[in-house]
Amino acid sequence: MPHPITSVTVHAPGTVANLVCGFDILGLCLHEPYDIMDVKLLPEKEIVIHSADGYPLPSDPKDNTAGAPLIEMLAELEDNIGFEVTIHKRIKPGSGVGSSAASAAGAVVAANHLLGNRFSKEQLVQFAMFGEKVASGVKHADNIAPCIYGGVTLIRSIHPLDIIALQPPDLHVTIVHPQIEVKTADARAILKQKILLKDAIRQWGNIAGLVAGIVQQDNALIGRSLEDVLIEPVRSILIPGFDEVKQRSKEAGALGGGISGSGPSIFMLSADKATAQNVEKTMQEVFTRVGIAYHTHVTQINTTGVKIVAEA
Amino acid sequence: MPHPITSVTVHAPGTVANLVCGFDILGLCLHEPYDIMDVKLLPEKEIVIHSADGYPLPSDPKDNTAGAPLIEMLAELEDNIGFEVTIHKRIKPGSGVGSSAASAAGAVVAANHLLGNRFSKEQLVQFAMFGEKVASGVKHADNIAPCIYGGVTLIRSIHPLDIIALQPPDLHVTIVHPQIEVKTADARAILKQKILLKDAIRQWGNIAGLVAGIVQQDNALIGRSLEDVLIEPVRSILIPGFDEVKQRSKEAGALGGGISGSGPSIFMLSADKATAQNVEKTMQEVFTRVGIAYHTHVTQINTTGVKIVAEA
Repeated sequence: MPHPITSVTVHAPGTVANLVCGFDILGLCLHEPYDIMDVKLLPEKEIVIHSADGYPLPSDPKDNTAGAPLIEMLAELEDNIGFEVTIHKRIKPGSGVGSSAASAAGAVVAANHLLGNRFSKEQLVQFAMFGEKVASGVKHADNIAPCIYGGVTLIRSIHPLDIIALQPPDLHVTIVHPQIEVKTADARAILKQKILLKDAIRQWGNIAGLVAGIVQQDNALIGRSLEDVLIEPVRSILIPGFDEVKQRSKEAGALGGGISGSGPSIFMLSADKATAQNVEKTMQEVFTRVGIAYHTHVTQINTTGVKIVAEA
Repeated sequence: MPHPITSVTVHAPGTVANLVCGFDILGLCLHEPYDIMDVKLLPEKEIVIHSADGYPLPSDPKDNTAGAPLIEMLAELEDNIGFEVTIHKRIKPGSGVGSSAASAAGAVVAANHLLGNRFSKEQLVQFAMFGEKVASGVKHADNIAPCIYGGVTLIRSIHPLDIIALQPPDLHVTIVHPQIEVKTADARAILKQKILLKDAIRQWGNIAGLVAGIVQQDNALIGRSLEDVLIEPVRSILIPGFDEVKQRSKEAGALGGGISGSGPSIFMLSADKATAQNVEKTMQEVFTRVGIAYHTHVTQINTTGVKIVAEA
């Protein structure tokens, strides 16, 4: 079967998992930062991975976050085809804004485009989760889903996979990435496996409030609900300056925010761009004083997810 | 200050707390059953409680679920007034559909009407929670809030009190009250105080799904989200026939459902009246065979809450 399009370039955006109280179930998609990925159709069943920027990405496809999902996808196809992927890594691995998810999601969306969109978004998430397994040992979808669906996604259930796209609020996002290393595996290991029912009740009150605030477009409710009594108090210890960034960002007008994914990036939501820029300044001041190098982004919620930007 | 209206009659409806996965935070208001309450203004600071039906309700106001909230309300007023309350108890105490909450909520809404609505709904909830403290020892709001606000309510937080009225779905509700006794205190005591984080994550995925389903009017999502991995497996042991009622109700077309509050009543949500009536038949068959007497109701979500039906 001939494929009219044989190469495609996509933007694979960063994502914020957890959204403070929604540990393992909520995530949102960002406009920036994003990876650029070129994917070409090959005439035989193979996967080839290149890193365009000298980033030391694993070149063996089965160890690569873009390669492993494509292996799964090819296994579903009878066609004698393959994919060559060139990754321009712009989202720093280990930053906590879904770098590995972007590679995995970008690869499967691009490949699916070359295949004439044979697979559903949900199937693409299933494939892409194999990339997360390579990256962190766990097949989680809280970055993958918003990267593929765009907007804000809820993973109601992993087994069976049940993804709900929530009508995304029109909010601005400020991200600061302090240049320290927080390994996802470590950030997971320090969590308590048993929690108090009363803390869980407080947490799910906030999760319910956050979902209601998002869907009902109630910014004040979103702000009040961005509270995490279980995970953040433990994980924030790994991020110097966290408490001050959070408090001063709110004083600068942010609705709220917290650790992005497992960190070390911190995100804050604001109702307008000027506030998001003030929050950025505040973040810069704190990390300058603490003496940790950083990158910041002022961006918006991306309602598209992975985007096809060129094809040939 | 003269009060033009000196007596009022209200319908104080039953409510379903928890909504399966939303333990302690979600509740919905029913059209039936409801209590009828007559409240009269008295010319001095006193509370008088009558039971119209020979139900053995505590006559000392401070021990009565309608009286205790009115004592709190009077304490906020400088006026030298009081209230005489006559309760026509139609919602069986101990049935699990918010009998005590109806008395408390009905009393404060009626009294507030006589006062020209000086207090907000949130203040009324604060007063009414003193009735729940009399009834169960705990100042919870998950029946009080839907009884006063109507529809479906979310208690995001108790301290500080944060109630969110969710846009209610247009659903039919079938209730069965098997005539067995489940004390709220017992139903609370058997719960584990520590839970696994992974179970909590599954629970809050469902809570988020339920809230999204309600607000986005997605009945299938509501149905999938009516799953409780923490509370129901423990509490349902106290209700013979529970598993069969649940399974057969779903086979009869119900979206889902579970224990109403702390039981023993069971509620099921359906998209239309015919299905809700089929579910009722199924419930009747199960409890007839199990040999437990029961009452059933086929009703709808009540978007009004406590309703003024007469005044003089």
